[in-house]
Amino acid sequence: MVESGARAPRADAQRNYERILDVARTVIEEQGTQASLRDVARRSGVGLGTLYRHFPSRDALLEALLRRRFDHLAERAEVLADSCPPWEALTRWLDEFVAGAGRYRGLPESIMATLRDDDSPLHAACLGMRRSGGALLQRAQLAGQVRADVTAVDLFALANAVGWIAEQDPALTGRREHLLALVLDGLGARPRQA
Amino acid sequence: MVESGARAPRADAQRNYERILDVARTVIEEQGTQASLRDVARRSGVGLGTLYRHFPSRDALLEALLRRRFDHLAERAEVLADSCPPWEALTRWLDEFVAGAGRYRGLPESIMATLRDDDSPLHAACLGMRRSGGALLQRAQLAGQVRADVTAVDLFALANAVGWIAEQDPALTGRREHLLALVLDGLGARPRQA
Repeated sequence: MVESGARAPRADAQRNYERILDVARTVIEEQGTQASLRDVARRSGVGLGTLYRHFPSRDALLEALLRRRFDHLAERAEVLADSCPPWEALTRWLDEFVAGAGRYRGLPESIMATLRDDDSPLHAACLGMRRSGGALLQRAQLAGQVRADVTAVDLFALANAVGWIAEQDPALTGRREHLLALVLDGLGARPRQA
Repeated sequence: MVESGARAPRADAQRNYERILDVARTVIEEQGTQASLRDVARRSGVGLGTLYRHFPSRDALLEALLRRRFDHLAERAEVLADSCPPWEALTRWLDEFVAGAGRYRGLPESIMATLRDDDSPLHAACLGMRRSGGALLQRAQLAGQVRADVTAVDLFALANAVGWIAEQDPALTGRREHLLALVLDGLGARPRQA
């Protein structure tokens, strides 16, 4: 049949796409976000050209891996805004953000790199998440619970920095929640001790 | 003369050492702490073997570049402890530490890596500086000005993390002092707003 004959290459392409993505998840878990794309292609059983046809850049591949997680974080921000007081919503969301940033080694740096590259596919995926976090920040600021001089980029940078610390040393991974709590304490609008 | 003949190779070695160090400073300023050591050797006009004879590892080269700065920071901690109240001494020292961490791209990560590598020459150089900073921390904690649950490693990690943020995006470099102030605020032992 002409129709099924025409569909087969698309089905092949779809299978390749899924296989590359599955393998990439494993390789990036092993090697971090700077993983060798050549390794990903080899272990997927495709050529590097095929990998680049599906994912024109490292960021495009990361974006495909992370999009669902980023979309989920954006949704969580809305749920928390609807169900929790401002400070609690912000801190719970940041906890989830920082825990997720620890998923792949190098992810905090890859996420920060999106700040200076508007054209990156990862930038677009992060932007939605950053805006949702920014809305939680603004809500906590309007409630007088966060200092007015904290920007959404400050918050995003500090949360990623805690994720970065956690990946520097296995002993520090267990300090992630404590370090985030310290940072959050610094954002809080509280009177200074005399 | 036999004596000067015997001294010449040492003089050559000393000249090579100084030249490699000067070139390394430039190359690492350009490329960061992960700079190509092959480039350093080539631009110094020596073979890679000669470079490794003087500096057996990347860390050994970084240590030679940074030792004076780290020793200076350790001394500054003592001067500040003698001349300023606890909180002021701690925050001024951290300001200087974080400004210095911005000297070479990748330095915050290289410094953090010393935490998990006791054998690195850079570890030894950092240890003195970390102990001096730790003494300022302890002094501020004894004065009730810093939370008791902050360790010297927490402080070191957070200060490096602010240095890391500053190198992620030129726009964030200018936020370094502000971000450090936010983090310091989090360390401060202050009553929480009701």
